[in-house]
Amino acid sequence: MSLAELETPVVTLDLDTVERNIAAMQRYCDEHGLALRPHIKTHKSIELARLQLDAGAAGICCQKLGEAETMLAAGIRDITIPYPLVGAAKAERLARLALDADVTVAVDSEASAHDLSAALDREDAEVDVLVDCDTGFGRTGVQSPDDAAALARTVASLPGLRFVGLMTYPTLPESAAWLRAAREAIEADGLRVERVSGGGTPGARFTHDRGEVNELRVGTYVFGDRACMAAGSATLDDCALRVVATVVSRPTATRAIVDAGTKTLTSDPARGETGFGLIVEHPEAVIYELNEEHGLVDLSACPSQPAIGDVVTIVPNHACGATNLHDELVVHRGGAVEGRLRVAARGLVR
Amino acid sequence: MSLAELETPVVTLDLDTVERNIAAMQRYCDEHGLALRPHIKTHKSIELARLQLDAGAAGICCQKLGEAETMLAAGIRDITIPYPLVGAAKAERLARLALDADVTVAVDSEASAHDLSAALDREDAEVDVLVDCDTGFGRTGVQSPDDAAALARTVASLPGLRFVGLMTYPTLPESAAWLRAAREAIEADGLRVERVSGGGTPGARFTHDRGEVNELRVGTYVFGDRACMAAGSATLDDCALRVVATVVSRPTATRAIVDAGTKTLTSDPARGETGFGLIVEHPEAVIYELNEEHGLVDLSACPSQPAIGDVVTIVPNHACGATNLHDELVVHRGGAVEGRLRVAARGLVR
Repeated sequence: MSLAELETPVVTLDLDTVERNIAAMQRYCDEHGLALRPHIKTHKSIELARLQLDAGAAGICCQKLGEAETMLAAGIRDITIPYPLVGAAKAERLARLALDADVTVAVDSEASAHDLSAALDREDAEVDVLVDCDTGFGRTGVQSPDDAAALARTVASLPGLRFVGLMTYPTLPESAAWLRAAREAIEADGLRVERVSGGGTPGARFTHDRGEVNELRVGTYVFGDRACMAAGSATLDDCALRVVATVVSRPTATRAIVDAGTKTLTSDPARGETGFGLIVEHPEAVIYELNEEHGLVDLSACPSQPAIGDVVTIVPNHACGATNLHDELVVHRGGAVEGRLRVAARGLVR
Repeated sequence: MSLAELETPVVTLDLDTVERNIAAMQRYCDEHGLALRPHIKTHKSIELARLQLDAGAAGICCQKLGEAETMLAAGIRDITIPYPLVGAAKAERLARLALDADVTVAVDSEASAHDLSAALDREDAEVDVLVDCDTGFGRTGVQSPDDAAALARTVASLPGLRFVGLMTYPTLPESAAWLRAAREAIEADGLRVERVSGGGTPGARFTHDRGEVNELRVGTYVFGDRACMAAGSATLDDCALRVVATVVSRPTATRAIVDAGTKTLTSDPARGETGFGLIVEHPEAVIYELNEEHGLVDLSACPSQPAIGDVVTIVPNHACGATNLHDELVVHRGGAVEGRLRVAARGLVR
C-alpha cells in the first residue's frame, strides 16, 4: 500500500529518515564524548525508544511518571525524569518505579527533595538526583549556582536520594559558565558532579562547544518539524513526521480548506514562521488559521493550486504535539507503507 | 473521594453544571421554535450525547465520520455531519453509515456532491443534504446565494441525495439576509428549504433575533470555557470543565510552574484574552507560556501566591481541544467524585 491510498488526515512516519536522524545524533554524541539520552516525549513509542537504545543511547528521558511506567513495562530500565515530581502520590509512584528501574530525577526545591526522600526511604528504594538549574531559559530550576550547591547538599543528606549532578534546559550559550560555577561550588563541598545534563534539539549540535555538559537530552531530533527547520536544526529531508491531508473545500480562488485542524496538527506555533505547518507540495501556501478539523490555507502566492480532492503533505510546526493527538502513526519507507506504530504513552500526563 | 485527592493534572467535569447548561440551551431553543442539534465535538462522549438527546435535542452533529460511526454504534441514529466529505473512501463510509442511520451531510462543491451520490446510489442509500453557505466567516461554503441555488439544483438532481436546506457557521448578524436570498432563489426553482442550520456557541442566544435559521448547532455550550467567557456566552459558573493542576516549581518570587502544559490544555488561544487559561483561585495570575508539560505562570499581580504542592483549578481557553487530549474525564457533583467519563470519540480525525 502506498501513502496515497491512505484515508486522510493521517500522520505518517518515514522510518528511513527516523533511522538516519537517530544515527546522526548518536554519531555526534559519540564523537564528542557525550551521553545521549533521548526524550521519548516526542514519539511516546516503545519501538522507537528501543531503536534509540540499540543505536547507543545511555537511557531515555520521560517527562511524566506514566510515560516512565509504560517504558519500564516494556523492559526499558534506565530512565531519567527531568521534571519536578511533587506531592505524595507522585513520590510513592516514583518509589515503586525505582524498585525495578534505574531512575534519575530532577529536583529544584527542598520541598520536593524531602517528599521524594520520605517515600523512597519507606520503600527502601534509591534514585539518582540532578539539581535542576535555570541557566537563562526562565522555566523551572534553581536561580543561582549557590542555590544549586545548597540544594545539592540537601539532596546528598537525604536517604533514598543520591546526588549525581546538574541539569538544565535548554543548553544556552550562557549555560556553561553558570553550570561551571555551580559544579565548582558543589565540588568545594566535597560532592562529586558526575552528570551535567543539557538539552534541546535546536542547540544540540553546539553542546560540545558550549562546554560543561556531558549528557544530551533531546527529543524532537528523531522526527524533525517546522520549528526545527526554522531554528536550523533540521532540513526538510530530516522531517520524518508528516501529516497527509486532503483538500476538502475550495470556496474561493485563493482559499483552500484541508481536513487537518488543531485536533490533527495542534495549534502550536513555530517560532520565526507564520502559520500552522508547511505544505510540501505548495511551499508558498500559508495555513493561516486552524479550527478543530479545518485548516484554512491562503493560496494567493502559489504558482499552482490544489483542487478539491487533492492530497497534500504537511510538515507540522511541532512534531511532539502532533504525535500526542494520535493513537498510532503510519510508518513507511519511501512511501511504501510498512505498518502502524502505536503511540503507547500518548495522553499519559500524570 | 473529593477532587482534592485526585492526582494531577486531571480534567474534571461538574455534572450539575453540564446538566444546567444542557437544560438552558434546550429551553432557549424550545422557546424560540429552534431545533437544537448539539455538536459532540466538544465532549466526544456517548453518555453526554444521550443527556442532550434526552433533554430534547433533535439529533447530534459529528464533524468526522469516525465520530458518527462511534455514536451510531452506541445507538444514536440521527446524525448531521456539517463537514465536507471528500474522496471515494469517505463516500463509501458515508453510504454504509446511511444504511443504518438518519444522516444529513453538508456539501459545498459539485465534486463532492457527485462523489457522495455515486457511493450512496451503489448502496441504495440516501442522505439529507444541506448546502454549506459562507455567509461571512470565510471558511467552507459556497460564496453567494446564487451559487447556493445552483448547488441545491445539482443536489436535488442526484440519486442518493435529498436536498433539505442550508447551513452556515457561525450564524453572524449578516447571515440572515444571505440565507434569505439563497432560500428565495432555491424556492423559486420549486425546491423546499426545510432546514436552515446555524451554529456557534458565542452567538447562540441571538439566533432567534437574527432570523432565517431554524436549527441550532452548538458544541461548547455544554462545557463552557474561557473563550466563551470572553465572548460573553458563559459565566465562570457555567464552566463545567476544569483542569486541576499542581504547582510543581516556584523558581522566583513571581513565577510558578504548574503541571499542565499544551498536552493537557492545548495551546489554543482565547480571543480577547492573554494567556492559556484562567486560574480560578488566582484570577490575577497569567499563564503566559506553555511547554508540553509545563504551564509558566506570572504571579506578579496576585495578592496571594500559591506554594509548591498547592493545587489550582484552571478553566481552559478551549474546552473542546482540551477534552480531545484525554481518554477520560473525572465527573463530580459539587466536588464529590462520581466516576470517570470516557471520551469515546477522542482522536477520531477521519
